[in-house]
Amino acid sequence: MSFSIAAFDKNSQARAGVLSTAHGEIQTPIFMPVGTLGGVKAVHFKELEREVKAQIILGNTYHLYLRPGMDVIFKAGGLHRFNGWDKPMLTDSGGYQVYSLAEIRKIKEEGASFRSHIDGSKHLFTPENVMDIQRIIGADIIMAFDECTPYPCDFRYAKKSMEMTHRWLSRCIEQFNNTEPHYGYEQVLFPIVQGSTFNDLRMQSAEFVAAQNLKGNAIGGLSVGEPAEEMYAMTEVVCGILPKEKPRYLMGVGTPANILECIALGIDMFDCVMPTRNARNGMLFTTSGIINIKNEKWKDDFSSIDENSSSELVRSTSKAFLRHLVHSGEMLGAMIASVNNLSMYLWLVAEARKKIIEGNYATWKNEMVKKLMQRL
Amino acid sequence: MSFSIAAFDKNSQARAGVLSTAHGEIQTPIFMPVGTLGGVKAVHFKELEREVKAQIILGNTYHLYLRPGMDVIFKAGGLHRFNGWDKPMLTDSGGYQVYSLAEIRKIKEEGASFRSHIDGSKHLFTPENVMDIQRIIGADIIMAFDECTPYPCDFRYAKKSMEMTHRWLSRCIEQFNNTEPHYGYEQVLFPIVQGSTFNDLRMQSAEFVAAQNLKGNAIGGLSVGEPAEEMYAMTEVVCGILPKEKPRYLMGVGTPANILECIALGIDMFDCVMPTRNARNGMLFTTSGIINIKNEKWKDDFSSIDENSSSELVRSTSKAFLRHLVHSGEMLGAMIASVNNLSMYLWLVAEARKKIIEGNYATWKNEMVKKLMQRL
Repeated sequence: MSFSIAAFDKNSQARAGVLSTAHGEIQTPIFMPVGTLGGVKAVHFKELEREVKAQIILGNTYHLYLRPGMDVIFKAGGLHRFNGWDKPMLTDSGGYQVYSLAEIRKIKEEGASFRSHIDGSKHLFTPENVMDIQRIIGADIIMAFDECTPYPCDFRYAKKSMEMTHRWLSRCIEQFNNTEPHYGYEQVLFPIVQGSTFNDLRMQSAEFVAAQNLKGNAIGGLSVGEPAEEMYAMTEVVCGILPKEKPRYLMGVGTPANILECIALGIDMFDCVMPTRNARNGMLFTTSGIINIKNEKWKDDFSSIDENSSSELVRSTSKAFLRHLVHSGEMLGAMIASVNNLSMYLWLVAEARKKIIEGNYATWKNEMVKKLMQRL
Repeated sequence: MSFSIAAFDKNSQARAGVLSTAHGEIQTPIFMPVGTLGGVKAVHFKELEREVKAQIILGNTYHLYLRPGMDVIFKAGGLHRFNGWDKPMLTDSGGYQVYSLAEIRKIKEEGASFRSHIDGSKHLFTPENVMDIQRIIGADIIMAFDECTPYPCDFRYAKKSMEMTHRWLSRCIEQFNNTEPHYGYEQVLFPIVQGSTFNDLRMQSAEFVAAQNLKGNAIGGLSVGEPAEEMYAMTEVVCGILPKEKPRYLMGVGTPANILECIALGIDMFDCVMPTRNARNGMLFTTSGIINIKNEKWKDDFSSIDENSSSELVRSTSKAFLRHLVHSGEMLGAMIASVNNLSMYLWLVAEARKKIIEGNYATWKNEMVKKLMQRL
């Protein structure tokens, strides 16, 4: 994997880069649609290519480990072969889902034991087996196993947790270095900065992570309920320490405004379930603001959902028709809304990239943040 | 609307034709995906074009009348404008749904009164207002209001019902002739042959219908539970009477085998919810037979769902991945299965058309019927 920076913005820390992986290039900043079970909810891969213009998707280790299970994915020859997506993929470490989804989870030095949310079966994730699992899944970028602290979190817990995450990181790196990819192409490991909302913990963690000298770095434990200002403050502190020449991934973020603000702070990669989850609830992100498509006011608005959308499907579908589908409980409503939201997110990062290259990102960002978050 | 027949098969009554409507040409024989509420369930219009290769879709008058309602569709400028599908459309008369879905329905000479299955509100469909409603929806082909008798049905009821359907047809034709299209393009009205499974009633009805000299003719009241042999027998009797030079539409039929058999009897147009409904239950129609994708045996079968599919999405998706999605309850499973089934149905009628033109339809049909109905 290599990362080259094509341009730095003049008035912010924003950068436009190119990330090369074994499955192709990614133009950064980039948003990664979440493919929970190996597929993005309500959007198939042809649509991801044609309508959304996705460049990389994220798979959830926790979900894939439970279903279809590692035996099936290994037999398939990895997730790329299993799901048919031959572009770049990233997998998370499963930690976040263990903490948020699994039943009766217990975190010890060894790892995290938990019961499956599907059938109650017992499992243990350790830094070592999570590396092995991600070797089997075979994503281009894999993530270290960490503990994601909740918000709010007291300082002592945050510090203890961060220190364990650092010890886990060392174990991840060792296991990663002692194993080979199964499918003949390169995988890279990204470590994760933790430290909750405490400046000094974040600095300490960023320094520890940076010192590992891996090919990219991630920031976790944000967008878990803290005010946006705290998220930005932590991101700024950490970006000041993580090396400039390597890609920076802010996990689980966020709204269009969050993304634009964090690009300005030097983030290159994002993922979030928000565009797809909100789509299924009838909330649309458009290039001119936010729409609750269930609202009566769209009943006879026959204009395009978003005439500036990069998706032909979105441009050619009217608000009234989408409202009718969502209102009638049709799956098709969730499908079109999901394509709308994801294509808007991908449009957003592509526009951001253009502005960075043109050198006027900061000004554009300030205008866009206001526009995109207004309710239409 | 015009209909020209390009070829007759040598050893059957099958015909290959071209049906020209105000929204484009349709190559017959054709299958029409059902767009219940104005959209085909789980398949959006870009997919219908790119993957399914649909040429015409069907809308349900009953559903559209209740939701979004005629005020919205009229304001939009008709269903084509409302849903964005600018290819041919056909609407049914709503009768079938009144009988199968609505609560407390009552059929009188005047029409059918019923309560909405959504909110219990009271409504009355008459031959006259069903013409008015279909004028507002604005499909290229609209259907007469009829009574679809159940199976089994005693002779006396079938005869009385057929006679009323004939009187209703005369009222439909009068109302149709006394009204103009709202949107500046031609609509045509198809009458419907009834008569349950009684030879002489079917003959009588076909003669009455043929005598109306409309631009196309339909056969209703079949595929309602009778054995396939009875369906074929009735279709054969009716096709012997309906004029050769006009398109014949067999409503609500059926399995791939039903379609091939009825093409051989002289049918040009079909619709059925089976491909989409069964898809949502994990039953796949493929070019080599039927697959229950929920079955454990597909768990690690990484071959294409159907390598001969005309859909790129289907060709590039493995059985194991689709099985995983369906098994995990992902909407994406129903979506891909729906594209599979519809693209298979459209492939089937396109292949049938080729064989008719080549003159060897009957032989091919006999082989295919066996192949397509086998369980893999």
